[in-house]
Amino acid sequence: MASQEYFKGIDNIKYEGHLSDNPLAFKYYNPEQVVAGKTMRAHFKFAIAYWHTFCGQGSDPFGSGTQNFAWDRASAPLQAAKDKADAAFEFILKMGFDYFCFHDFDLIQEGTTFSEFEKRLATITEYIKQKKAETGIKLLWGTANCFSNPRYMNGASTNPDFNVLARAGGQIKLALDATITLDGENYVFWGGREGYMSLLNTDMGRELDHMGQFLTMARDYARAQGFKGNFFIEPKPMEPMKHQYDFDTATTIGFLRKYGLEKDFKINIEVNHATLAQHTFQHEMETAANADMLGSLDANRGDYQNGWDTDQFPNNIQETTEAMLVFLKAGGLQGGGINFDAKIRRNSTDMEDVFLAHIGGADTFARALITADKIITSSAYDKLRKARYSSFDSGKGQDFEAGKLDLKDLYNIAQENGELKLQSGKQELFENIINQYI
Amino acid sequence: MASQEYFKGIDNIKYEGHLSDNPLAFKYYNPEQVVAGKTMRAHFKFAIAYWHTFCGQGSDPFGSGTQNFAWDRASAPLQAAKDKADAAFEFILKMGFDYFCFHDFDLIQEGTTFSEFEKRLATITEYIKQKKAETGIKLLWGTANCFSNPRYMNGASTNPDFNVLARAGGQIKLALDATITLDGENYVFWGGREGYMSLLNTDMGRELDHMGQFLTMARDYARAQGFKGNFFIEPKPMEPMKHQYDFDTATTIGFLRKYGLEKDFKINIEVNHATLAQHTFQHEMETAANADMLGSLDANRGDYQNGWDTDQFPNNIQETTEAMLVFLKAGGLQGGGINFDAKIRRNSTDMEDVFLAHIGGADTFARALITADKIITSSAYDKLRKARYSSFDSGKGQDFEAGKLDLKDLYNIAQENGELKLQSGKQELFENIINQYI
Amino acid sequence: MASQEYFKGIDNIKYEGHLSDNPLAFKYYNPEQVVAGKTMRAHFKFAIAYWHTFCGQGSDPFGSGTQNFAWDRASAPLQAAKDKADAAFEFILKMGFDYFCFHDFDLIQEGTTFSEFEKRLATITEYIKQKKAETGIKLLWGTANCFSNPRYMNGASTNPDFNVLARAGGQIKLALDATITLDGENYVFWGGREGYMSLLNTDMGRELDHMGQFLTMARDYARAQGFKGNFFIEPKPMEPMKHQYDFDTATTIGFLRKYGLEKDFKINIEVNHATLAQHTFQHEMETAANADMLGSLDANRGDYQNGWDTDQFPNNIQETTEAMLVFLKAGGLQGGGINFDAKIRRNSTDMEDVFLAHIGGADTFARALITADKIITSSAYDKLRKARYSSFDSGKGQDFEAGKLDLKDLYNIAQENGELKLQSGKQELFENIINQYI
Amino acid sequence: MASQEYFKGIDNIKYEGHLSDNPLAFKYYNPEQVVAGKTMRAHFKFAIAYWHTFCGQGSDPFGSGTQNFAWDRASAPLQAAKDKADAAFEFILKMGFDYFCFHDFDLIQEGTTFSEFEKRLATITEYIKQKKAETGIKLLWGTANCFSNPRYMNGASTNPDFNVLARAGGQIKLALDATITLDGENYVFWGGREGYMSLLNTDMGRELDHMGQFLTMARDYARAQGFKGNFFIEPKPMEPMKHQYDFDTATTIGFLRKYGLEKDFKINIEVNHATLAQHTFQHEMETAANADMLGSLDANRGDYQNGWDTDQFPNNIQETTEAMLVFLKAGGLQGGGINFDAKIRRNSTDMEDVFLAHIGGADTFARALITADKIITSSAYDKLRKARYSSFDSGKGQDFEAGKLDLKDLYNIAQENGELKLQSGKQELFENIINQYI
Repeated sequence: MASQEYFKGIDNIKYEGHLSDNPLAFKYYNPEQVVAGKTMRAHFKFAIAYWHTFCGQGSDPFGSGTQNFAWDRASAPLQAAKDKADAAFEFILKMGFDYFCFHDFDLIQEGTTFSEFEKRLATITEYIKQKKAETGIKLLWGTANCFSNPRYMNGASTNPDFNVLARAGGQIKLALDATITLDGENYVFWGGREGYMSLLNTDMGRELDHMGQFLTMARDYARAQGFKGNFFIEPKPMEPMKHQYDFDTATTIGFLRKYGLEKDFKINIEVNHATLAQHTFQHEMETAANADMLGSLDANRGDYQNGWDTDQFPNNIQETTEAMLVFLKAGGLQGGGINFDAKIRRNSTDMEDVFLAHIGGADTFARALITADKIITSSAYDKLRKARYSSFDSGKGQDFEAGKLDLKDLYNIAQENGELKLQSGKQELFENIINQYI
Repeated sequence: MASQEYFKGIDNIKYEGHLSDNPLAFKYYNPEQVVAGKTMRAHFKFAIAYWHTFCGQGSDPFGSGTQNFAWDRASAPLQAAKDKADAAFEFILKMGFDYFCFHDFDLIQEGTTFSEFEKRLATITEYIKQKKAETGIKLLWGTANCFSNPRYMNGASTNPDFNVLARAGGQIKLALDATITLDGENYVFWGGREGYMSLLNTDMGRELDHMGQFLTMARDYARAQGFKGNFFIEPKPMEPMKHQYDFDTATTIGFLRKYGLEKDFKINIEVNHATLAQHTFQHEMETAANADMLGSLDANRGDYQNGWDTDQFPNNIQETTEAMLVFLKAGGLQGGGINFDAKIRRNSTDMEDVFLAHIGGADTFARALITADKIITSSAYDKLRKARYSSFDSGKGQDFEAGKLDLKDLYNIAQENGELKLQSGKQELFENIINQYI
Repeated sequence: MASQEYFKGIDNIKYEGHLSDNPLAFKYYNPEQVVAGKTMRAHFKFAIAYWHTFCGQGSDPFGSGTQNFAWDRASAPLQAAKDKADAAFEFILKMGFDYFCFHDFDLIQEGTTFSEFEKRLATITEYIKQKKAETGIKLLWGTANCFSNPRYMNGASTNPDFNVLARAGGQIKLALDATITLDGENYVFWGGREGYMSLLNTDMGRELDHMGQFLTMARDYARAQGFKGNFFIEPKPMEPMKHQYDFDTATTIGFLRKYGLEKDFKINIEVNHATLAQHTFQHEMETAANADMLGSLDANRGDYQNGWDTDQFPNNIQETTEAMLVFLKAGGLQGGGINFDAKIRRNSTDMEDVFLAHIGGADTFARALITADKIITSSAYDKLRKARYSSFDSGKGQDFEAGKLDLKDLYNIAQENGELKLQSGKQELFENIINQYI
Repeated sequence: MASQEYFKGIDNIKYEGHLSDNPLAFKYYNPEQVVAGKTMRAHFKFAIAYWHTFCGQGSDPFGSGTQNFAWDRASAPLQAAKDKADAAFEFILKMGFDYFCFHDFDLIQEGTTFSEFEKRLATITEYIKQKKAETGIKLLWGTANCFSNPRYMNGASTNPDFNVLARAGGQIKLALDATITLDGENYVFWGGREGYMSLLNTDMGRELDHMGQFLTMARDYARAQGFKGNFFIEPKPMEPMKHQYDFDTATTIGFLRKYGLEKDFKINIEVNHATLAQHTFQHEMETAANADMLGSLDANRGDYQNGWDTDQFPNNIQETTEAMLVFLKAGGLQGGGINFDAKIRRNSTDMEDVFLAHIGGADTFARALITADKIITSSAYDKLRKARYSSFDSGKGQDFEAGKLDLKDLYNIAQENGELKLQSGKQELFENIINQYI
């Protein structure tokens, strides 16, 4: 294991209850606490995002990095990669989480040739495999970064140049291999450059066909290698591209169905991507759950006053509580977990800040889960909601759902009914119930 | 015909060329001018929106109506409805357009019972049928207003109360009958209340299933009555509901395919709904065209600094030019036309203002069509755009499109290729070309 | 007093603690509970908004009213106005609040002539004066509705037509008189049509000069009548106008200073107006407090996914807690109170819904106040925040604040200092503290 | 002069008229053409933004730079800086522009100590002074980059740490010195980090006082050195900070007046910053002009579907035409010019792309100026607009403007007038006129 301790002075983070004055303790997240029949640990499968937590250094479009990490000091790429892995596993252990997620280029610098990258990736994969074995930490999902390198500036699988598409194919083959080697439970596609900067120079239909074909090939390859996990697509409406093809959950589900991918693919929903698309997080979850595709969650939040991807750590209690209502009613996630795809603020430069951020995030989810469970089990919430639809549970309403009526039947019912009594939606009551249980 | 002339002093609007000083003349819209093989009249099938132009009176959430129409003075509903129809046909004739579009309640006040409405609608439909015969003006599409009446406050086909759904079914039967009677070329669904105010009290999956079932029944009924036209769905992301189910074109296409409606239904795209959904108008058109569902257009525009449906008359030359590029490449619309779903500003209270508004709108489309045609036929635009994708027109790229490659093939190509040359997207060049031709 | 009980079956709303199962009880708002040295009642001065609660009927741009009020049945305007007043006072008493706010046209229909309105307003003012005397309920502020009537479609004090400006002046004189008669503690200006629909036809500078002149005249008149209260301006960025002149707090303060009105006027901040302007509620409060102009609050909330003024009842615990931090640090409001400028959803049609809404709103503020007080008194929050600025409390930093340094001094200090240590902003820690105390 | 030609193959860009097929020619910008009494050259004072055009390399938050510049190859900072200056002057000459703008760190890398930077800056300043002398190219404005370096992560003049403020002071002294040495006509402040990430940890009032004090010191120093130019502040609402203090023009003017800076400072308006603040470009210009503070323009555009600072090259003909209406009516800019603060798209990687972009931008402004001039001189536009306010040009309206009326006078006029005739705002007519002249 690591010879260096990167996060010296920070002990393992423990649950101390919500009155604890210790900023480095969980107030709500108690991994072994059972809620709705499962431990919190099992519900959430909290994962660390390798890129934000170990690669991001606080740069933004208006300034360079502010965070100087001890593990970034080695000049040899392989040593730097090992140091980063050491730091990552130390951090995850101290947080008491079980999972991590990565892009290929998070693990190690790409190098100047494809072959060099292939070698580097294989080497660091072996190293991480060992660390996994030593610690019991698992891989929630792997992915390939097909958006940062200039070669992907016009897209990866949707690039107008076939050779770039082929390069992305080669890269994703390697990322799938690495994910399989590391017993990854899932594999994610986020198409950071799959979209357009200008519709003027774009043949959207042709690009979408290419993407469908490409994903089919990736799936077939992985299945042939014995990969049993889920494939996830992570929607985002815009940024970096003006328009991203995986705009939101509904758009993505439509795409998957069109290209026959709906059996193998599910959705990985990110909060900030939801809100950029003018949806709530819970709306996106419900949309996915309704299609049996609620795969995994990228936990973070946006800023409602800012129009870009701020990727802040989750701290919105109400939003997360409403999301956990959907979560529990959907029976949890299909294969995935909750990945903290969030970054500390550029001016959070103390070593402890990244711990504080993850603690706040985990506590937000834990508190929301407990609250949502109580709302479902102890309040009038669920009963009130179901009662609204009771007219479809029997009689003509039931016939309608069973497809036994035609439009003339509805016309006849309308004629017989006369004017109808208005039925309050009781929105304020529902909202009060949620708040009372928080 | 009408005994009263409602728009006295305004003669028939004529084309006078772009240098004309006459505000009441078309500067670009010359109905019989042939562009890209068809007259402008045939390309556009301009239609007047009965609701905005003859029913809207300038009220908004902060104030009452400002426009007092002579045709609204009769107190007897049927007389008022006939006067409105007289005014409508007078206006359309003076504008030189060929079409109108309506909601059932635009034609005549609903009345207090369903039977009364049925009778009223039948009577006014006969009256309008006569006026159509006299004038040659046609019905582009009909629709039912299932969103204004309080009974639809929780939705129409997605209402939690089956009896409201049935009432909507009865109403839509009558609207379909009226549309068929008036030889309507198409029928539109805009689900103004199909969505939710709060996800907390909503079973989204069940509501969507109801909507799918309901549209199936409506289609089946209309087809059984011999209706041969298209059904259109008009997407909108929000307003009046917090979330509308037909959020945008991609969402709506996914919905139609899920419920097996994709053969009969196409999309009616409204500019302001596109921009509220954070898409461009041309993006929505391209998305529909790509699915062979570019049905019809609701011409208007939003205000980019305001977040609600302002429904202003189209005047954006660049946006419309880019839209007409998509329009021409798609081979025009499938059955529909261009309906001015726009309202004059609340403070536009002169009789001539509504003429000026339609003239500005028609001229914007006409100019855009001429410009787009020139861009396609005379500039490097189309060649440059196609050249970007040439690597897929032969060799391995062609094999990829034909499904002859697998992921390992891509990997092998990537290995052989070495690093790739960056290919500029030339966005600024494309943009300069568009502007030069405007 | 009223012969009719409008809200039969709903008893006076009481505080029952946060575990109460009674939806018609306060869970947090305990009027006599002392927080930070004052009762909640005194902190908040909760007020009912006459317009939303007693005049609004649930119409929106896409549909008519859904709420049929018993007090709207009388056809004679004066009787209807008295019935509405009876209902209002019954409601306020049952809620246990002390205040109301009104626009002139809320109290009674305008009538067809100015003189008629003058008479009507005087009559209903006397009636309400009596009801105030009987109940002890007070007027937080009055205002004039100079935006709904068509005559104001181009503005009131900023109308290009002087005669409209004069009419607004006359109307505001009467509203000031009524406010004074009713011992109103403040008077508010919300310029619903003070702005522009199109900059093309607008002389903005001239219109702003008119507004400055007009407010000066209104102030001088009221002061001459002995009015001692505050004048408030309520900023809003847009809607109904494309651009409203009182865009946000900073803009409004700049305007007041330019026209010499900053001594008499303060700001009335509405949550939904803040968020439409891309600010947080707490930002707007801080901006006003920083200028000593934090006058009053209009409590409601917007929907972050929708871009218009939804005026929902406040229920955002975190937002309100952060607002109460500013509130407490500013020493509360200058003359104003917390007015529920919010409306129940269009589909909230049960009689109890409006009670539930106000209960939820009051509880949100009460809980936030308690939490904010604890954060200030018990947590590290305030100390951490002050410590960030400690370098200005002594030495050269203090000299800088005292104006004793020039740019060369800074240059010399910079040269001597060498590179500086980064100081973390600790945002995640601050956020965790807030959430822990909620 | 430069030994290397960086933009080989691209000859000097010339005006060839709007029918020219040469993409590397101006279609509308004819520098010596006289419009409204001045040459286009004199109206616009087009400037190149050193940072975007010579320093930006196409990186974004999701990927690294795509543009590899020949002038970036030297490893020695001074040589690299000279090469960049050579390239810059070559480019400006080829474009036929007269001006450039810079931040200190654009000219040369900062180095590791303050003294080193001071020396570097002095050296490159001398080099550029020479190039200016050789070419006649002038400095429109200089500025200091006090936002990119990690030390400014919590602000520069608003940093909670006085020593950071002092460092910013030292840096700005040097930038002022360099600007003066280079005969800079103006000096700009853009407070990229002057604002907050979180209001929770921020004392906004104290920070604003610091900023006021700091700007006062900077002004006093520059004036003492004999600087006669204008100081500009460039508003921006957000990004990189959550909230930027110089939110928009109105906010900034209020700030300048509060701290007594309104005589020396004017506003530098950027299009994309305007639209991020939910204003139009022309609104911001009008606001500044109305305060006699329309200083300079940063020409670019945002994307209305994306919520971040895209800094695209201007190409919006209608927006720019409306802006030029304000420009001409204001009598042009006070000291400033039009700086292309815009960057080519990340995927625009051909050498010619940056020329195409500037050509498109200059042509957009030139065309807009010609059009606006024609609208003013040949159309009914101005007359119609003035006529709207004619009631204030005589009689009681004139008395009102002269301050001769009080509120009771208005009341009396209102009583006498009776109900008023509605006067149409004619918005559609105004819009049609604009479009006709484009």
